[in-house]
Amino acid sequence: MTPEQHTISVFGAAGYAGALAARLLYRHPNFDLRWVTARSDVGRRLDDVYPQHRVPMVLEEADIDRHGDVDAAVVAYPHGASAPFVAELRERGVKVVDLSADFRLRDLATYEEWYKPHPRPELIGEAVYGLPELYRDQIAGAELVANPGCYPTATILALAPLARAGLIADVVIDAKSGVSGAGRSATEATHFVTVDENVNAYGVPRHRHTPEIEQELAALGSDVLITFTPHLLPLDQGELVSCYVALNDPDLPTDEIHALYRDAYDSERFVELVQSPAGVRAVRETNICRISVHRDERTGRAIVFGAIDNLWKGTASQGVQNLNLMFGVPEEAGIGA
Amino acid sequence: MTPEQHTISVFGAAGYAGALAARLLYRHPNFDLRWVTARSDVGRRLDDVYPQHRVPMVLEEADIDRHGDVDAAVVAYPHGASAPFVAELRERGVKVVDLSADFRLRDLATYEEWYKPHPRPELIGEAVYGLPELYRDQIAGAELVANPGCYPTATILALAPLARAGLIADVVIDAKSGVSGAGRSATEATHFVTVDENVNAYGVPRHRHTPEIEQELAALGSDVLITFTPHLLPLDQGELVSCYVALNDPDLPTDEIHALYRDAYDSERFVELVQSPAGVRAVRETNICRISVHRDERTGRAIVFGAIDNLWKGTASQGVQNLNLMFGVPEEAGIGA
Amino acid sequence: MTPEQHTISVFGAAGYAGALAARLLYRHPNFDLRWVTARSDVGRRLDDVYPQHRVPMVLEEADIDRHGDVDAAVVAYPHGASAPFVAELRERGVKVVDLSADFRLRDLATYEEWYKPHPRPELIGEAVYGLPELYRDQIAGAELVANPGCYPTATILALAPLARAGLIADVVIDAKSGVSGAGRSATEATHFVTVDENVNAYGVPRHRHTPEIEQELAALGSDVLITFTPHLLPLDQGELVSCYVALNDPDLPTDEIHALYRDAYDSERFVELVQSPAGVRAVRETNICRISVHRDERTGRAIVFGAIDNLWKGTASQGVQNLNLMFGVPEEAGIGA
Amino acid sequence: MTPEQHTISVFGAAGYAGALAARLLYRHPNFDLRWVTARSDVGRRLDDVYPQHRVPMVLEEADIDRHGDVDAAVVAYPHGASAPFVAELRERGVKVVDLSADFRLRDLATYEEWYKPHPRPELIGEAVYGLPELYRDQIAGAELVANPGCYPTATILALAPLARAGLIADVVIDAKSGVSGAGRSATEATHFVTVDENVNAYGVPRHRHTPEIEQELAALGSDVLITFTPHLLPLDQGELVSCYVALNDPDLPTDEIHALYRDAYDSERFVELVQSPAGVRAVRETNICRISVHRDERTGRAIVFGAIDNLWKGTASQGVQNLNLMFGVPEEAGIGA
Repeated sequence: MTPEQHTISVFGAAGYAGALAARLLYRHPNFDLRWVTARSDVGRRLDDVYPQHRVPMVLEEADIDRHGDVDAAVVAYPHGASAPFVAELRERGVKVVDLSADFRLRDLATYEEWYKPHPRPELIGEAVYGLPELYRDQIAGAELVANPGCYPTATILALAPLARAGLIADVVIDAKSGVSGAGRSATEATHFVTVDENVNAYGVPRHRHTPEIEQELAALGSDVLITFTPHLLPLDQGELVSCYVALNDPDLPTDEIHALYRDAYDSERFVELVQSPAGVRAVRETNICRISVHRDERTGRAIVFGAIDNLWKGTASQGVQNLNLMFGVPEEAGIGA
Repeated sequence: MTPEQHTISVFGAAGYAGALAARLLYRHPNFDLRWVTARSDVGRRLDDVYPQHRVPMVLEEADIDRHGDVDAAVVAYPHGASAPFVAELRERGVKVVDLSADFRLRDLATYEEWYKPHPRPELIGEAVYGLPELYRDQIAGAELVANPGCYPTATILALAPLARAGLIADVVIDAKSGVSGAGRSATEATHFVTVDENVNAYGVPRHRHTPEIEQELAALGSDVLITFTPHLLPLDQGELVSCYVALNDPDLPTDEIHALYRDAYDSERFVELVQSPAGVRAVRETNICRISVHRDERTGRAIVFGAIDNLWKGTASQGVQNLNLMFGVPEEAGIGA
Repeated sequence: MTPEQHTISVFGAAGYAGALAARLLYRHPNFDLRWVTARSDVGRRLDDVYPQHRVPMVLEEADIDRHGDVDAAVVAYPHGASAPFVAELRERGVKVVDLSADFRLRDLATYEEWYKPHPRPELIGEAVYGLPELYRDQIAGAELVANPGCYPTATILALAPLARAGLIADVVIDAKSGVSGAGRSATEATHFVTVDENVNAYGVPRHRHTPEIEQELAALGSDVLITFTPHLLPLDQGELVSCYVALNDPDLPTDEIHALYRDAYDSERFVELVQSPAGVRAVRETNICRISVHRDERTGRAIVFGAIDNLWKGTASQGVQNLNLMFGVPEEAGIGA
Repeated sequence: MTPEQHTISVFGAAGYAGALAARLLYRHPNFDLRWVTARSDVGRRLDDVYPQHRVPMVLEEADIDRHGDVDAAVVAYPHGASAPFVAELRERGVKVVDLSADFRLRDLATYEEWYKPHPRPELIGEAVYGLPELYRDQIAGAELVANPGCYPTATILALAPLARAGLIADVVIDAKSGVSGAGRSATEATHFVTVDENVNAYGVPRHRHTPEIEQELAALGSDVLITFTPHLLPLDQGELVSCYVALNDPDLPTDEIHALYRDAYDSERFVELVQSPAGVRAVRETNICRISVHRDERTGRAIVFGAIDNLWKGTASQGVQNLNLMFGVPEEAGIGA
C-alpha cells in the first residue's frame, strides 16, 4: 500500500462484472480496494465464489455508512436499483462509476420509454458517458460516470469514425455475445444444455441497448434509427458486433474510409485496427476493442466488425479505465495488456 | 431388400456430406446403397471413419464402370471437379443429385465470375435447382438436380414469401455456421483451439453463395443485390441466417407478413414457423428449416431468422429429399422426423 | 394407430429423461403414447418446452385415475418420490418402468444407507433390474422394472465379462459425464459459464451410483468394493467410464480377456466392441454402449472404456428397450439405429 | 529496458508453448526478448499468428550465431530435435530451459525405451528437472533445465507429499486435457468436429509421460509402477489429473494426510490447496497448480486432484519460473497472478 492510493468499494461484487472489477482493483497500483459488498453470498469470501479472481475478501451486506467512506465506488447494481444508491454515494462526495444503465441516457423521456420511471432524474445531467475514446476529457473531470453497455461499447467504437463524418445513412447491427453477458443468474436460458450447440437471437426487436447506441451516433453526427439484434453464442466471454452500414456517400473510396479509422484510432491504446475480420478470441480478458473495416463493393455498404470481451472492455475493465481518468492516474494502470 | 428399391452410389463419401448421405441411404426403404467411393481413405470402412453413421461398407476408389452401374448417384465432389463426373454419369443414364455448386447457377457468366470456367456448361440447362419447397414439380421430373448450398437453403426459405410478393427492397443477411460447414479438412481454421471461445466472419465481402441467393430471390420476384456475410461459431452442426429486410412497402401490417409465411409453409412438412427467434438446436440432425418472422416497428424492417442443420437440410438430407421426389417415393422417406 | 399398440403414459415428462422417453414412445410402432404429465410446465406443450422432440402433446398435472388408465407407464420422478407413485400404478395393474433409483437396490439396508427410508420396501422384491444385456429373460416377465442409473449402465456393461469370470480383484472407475446428466434444473453447477472450459469431479467420494455397481458386480461373481468418481465435462450428452481393473489373475493372456468380451457381446445388438479407445461422440443419440478393452502390460491391469449417451442408453432409450421386452415386441423397436 | 535485463531468445515460437513463452518474456521486467524463431511461419509477425499474445516481433529462421548470442534461451522443439540444438547453445554458454522431453529422464536406457536413441546423452547429467516446488535450489544453480511435461507437473505436485512419506503402494492416474496439449498441428484429432461433444482416451496404455512420473515418485520415496491414462476433452487449455492412491498405510487418518499437504505447500506461492474437487477453470492462464485431497473411507484410497493450465504451469510459465530461479530474480516475476 503506497500513500497515493485512493480508497474504493465495489458494490454488487457477487455478479460477474462486479467481481471482475474487484479483481482488477484489488491488484491496481493506484487504488486500495477496501470493501466488496453483495446481496447474495454475504459472508462468503470472494475467492470462494470466484476462485479464478483470487480476491481474499469477504462479501458484506452493503452499508452506506461503512462502505461509503471511500474516495470512489464501482456500483454494479441492476438498472433502477442503482440510481438511488448512487445518489447516496454522491451526497457523501464519493466519485462513482455506475455499471448500470441508469445514467447512460441523457434524455429522461427516452430512459423512461425503454426502462421505467427514473428514480433520480436530477442526477442525469451530472453523469458523463464513460466511453474514454469519445469522452476522455469529460470523464477526467467527472464525479459520476455512466459506464456504457457492452454492446454499445463495441458498436459505438466500430461506428464512431463513420458517424463523426456524417456518413451513416442506415445501419443494421447483428451482435453476438457469450453467455457471461446474461449474468450469473441460473436460468433455463443460461443452462449449459440450452446454449451448447445452439445459437439464436433474443430481445427481438427492441433490445434496451438500442437507444444508447442511437444517442451516441447522433451526438457524433449521424442521427439514425438503427436495427440492433443480439444473439447468444456457446462461449463464455466475448462479443462481436457486425455492422452493415449504408453510406450517405456510397461512392466514397474505401481508402478514405480506412483513413477515417486510422485518424480516430491510431493513437488509442485500447483500439486495434486489423485487416482480417475481427474475432473475439484475440481480445479475451483484455480491455481492447478490435475493429476491422471492409467494403462491399457490390452494394456500396461498409461492413465493420468490432470485437470486445464483454466483461472487460464491455464492462469492468472499462470501468477501471474510467476510474483511472477520473483520478488522473495512467489510463492503462491495472488493465494494461 | 425389397424389389422396388432403386440402386444408388455415393461418390465422395469420405467427406462430411457424402458420408451422411450414405448413412441416410443405407437405411432408406426405397434405395439400395451399392457403393461408396472416396479419394482419401480408400480401403477403410465407412464405419471406421465415421463410427456414428454405422455404415459397414468399404470406401472404394471411384470407377465409373463399376460404380456408375446404378439407377442414381449422389456426387459429393468439390466445385469444378463435380461437373465432368456428373456428365459421365448422365451419359450412362444415371439420375444425379450433385451436392457441388456446379449446376446451381443458371447463368454461365455468373458462375464463371464467382467460380472459374465451367467444365460442362452444356449441362446447366438440364439441371433443376433442388429446393423442394420451391421446385417440387420440376425436381420430380428431373434427371439432374443441383442441390442448393447450405446458406442459400436457409436464406431462400426464410425470404421466399417476401420475395414472391415482391416486397424485398434490400436485405442484409448475417449468417452463422457450425464448423462442419467448413468440411473435414484439418486446417488452422478448423483446429479446435482456433474455433473454441471464438466467433468471427469469413469470406468478407464476397462469399460464393451470394449469387445463388440472388438468383433465387430474383426468380421469385425480388431482383436485389444482397449483402451476405457468414460467421464461424464454436458448434459442430447448425446454421442460422438472420435476415434484415427493408420492405418495398414499409407500412405493410405485420399480420399480412405473417399470412404470407403461413400461406407458403403451412403445408410444408419440413418447414416450421415459430414465434420465438428460431435457434439451431431445435433442428439438429433433422431435415427441417425453422423460421421466425419479426418486425422492427421503429425502422419498418422485417427480421427473419432461418435455422437448419447445415449437413442435413443444408446438404445431405435435402439431397435425399430430392432423390425421393425424382423417384416418386414418399418425400419424407428415410429422412422423416 | 394399429390394434396391437399398448397404451402408455410418461409421468415426469418435463425433465430431460422423461421428455426423451415421450419422444421415443410417441413414434414407437407398438405403443400409443396417451399422456404426458409434469410437475412444472403444466399446460405447456411438450414441443414448446423441447422443440427438438416434436411431441405435440400438452403436459398435464398427474392424475392417477386419468393417466393411470393405461397398459404401461414410464415414471421419471426423483428418488423417493417415485416409489409411492409406482405403488399406485402397480395396484392398478399398470406395468411400470421406473427411471428413479427407488427399486434398483435389492437390499433395503443398502438403499437406506445411501438414500433415505424407503417409502415402499414391499415392492423391492417385485422389481427386476432393467439392464437387458444381463437380465433379458427376467425383464420379459416383469411387471416392474427398475431402470439402471446411467453410470451403472456403462460401468456394468464394461465390466460384466470380467466380473462373471470372477477376475476383478479391485477396480477404479473414473467416470465423465455431459451436463444433461445433472438434469434440467438451472443451478450454478449447470450454468454455461461454470461448465465451459472446465472439468472437475463431483460427488467425491460417495456417489450414490456406487452401491448399484457393486450389487451387480457381486451378482455376476466379483464381490468388491469399488472406487467410483464422476466428473462433469463441457458437453451436453455423453458419458464415458474409464475402468482400471486389477485382475485376480494378473498373468491372464490379453487374448483371453478379449474372448470373454466377444462371448458376452458378439450377439448383442446394442453393444459395440471396438479396438480404439471408445469415445462418446460415436454413440450420441443411440441406445448403444461402445466398449474397448486394453491391457497395461506393465502393471497387469485391464483398462476398459465404456461409452454411452447418458440420456439414451443411460436412461430413456434403455427404458424403451425394457418396455419392448416386457411387452414382447422387437427389442429394437422404436430405438433402432 | 533497464540495465539488469538478461537477453533471451525463444526458439520454436510458432508453436503454442513457444509463443506463450515469448509473450511472457516480452513483458518480463528482468528479461529482454531479443529473438523469436520458427520453422514454420518464418517472416510472419508473431502477433499476426497469435494476435492474443501481442508480441510485435517477426519470426525468423533459427540461426545459432545470430540468435544464440544471448544470455538465455527457451527451446520449444520436438523431442529428439531439441537435444542437438541445446548442445550448441550450451557450448556458447547460453543458459537453457528446454521444453522438450530430451533431458527430463535421468536414466538413458529409460529414455531410449520410451523415445529413441538419445542424440546427446552426455548432457543428461548436467540437466536439472525443472519442477521448482521440488528442485528449487538445484534449478537456481543450473545452466540447463529440463522443463517437465504438463501431465507430470500436475501429477507429481498432486502426489509428492504422499510419495515423500513413502505412502504410495499403487496409483491409477486418470488425466484429462484440453486440446492445446495436442499442439498446433491441424489433424483429424484436433479438428473441432472431432473433439466437440466428445471425450475419449488416447495413448493407451503407454503414454510417454509415464516414466517421467515414475522417476520423480521414486526420487521422492515411492518406487511404483503407475497406470497413467490421458483423455482429450472439448476445451482449449486446462489439465486435470485424478489420482487414485492405494496407501501403504490404509488406516492412516485423513487428517495426517492433509497435514502432509499443508507442510509441503503452505508456503508455495503457485500451489493452492482447496477442499472442493479442484477444477481447471480456476487456474486458466495462471502458473498455479490447484490441489484437493480426499479420502475414500470405504476402500482406504486417497483421491487427489491436481489442476493446471497445460500451457502455463504445464509448460511456458513454468519455464519462466525456472528462468527466474536460474537468474536469481523474483520467482514470480512476469508470471505473478
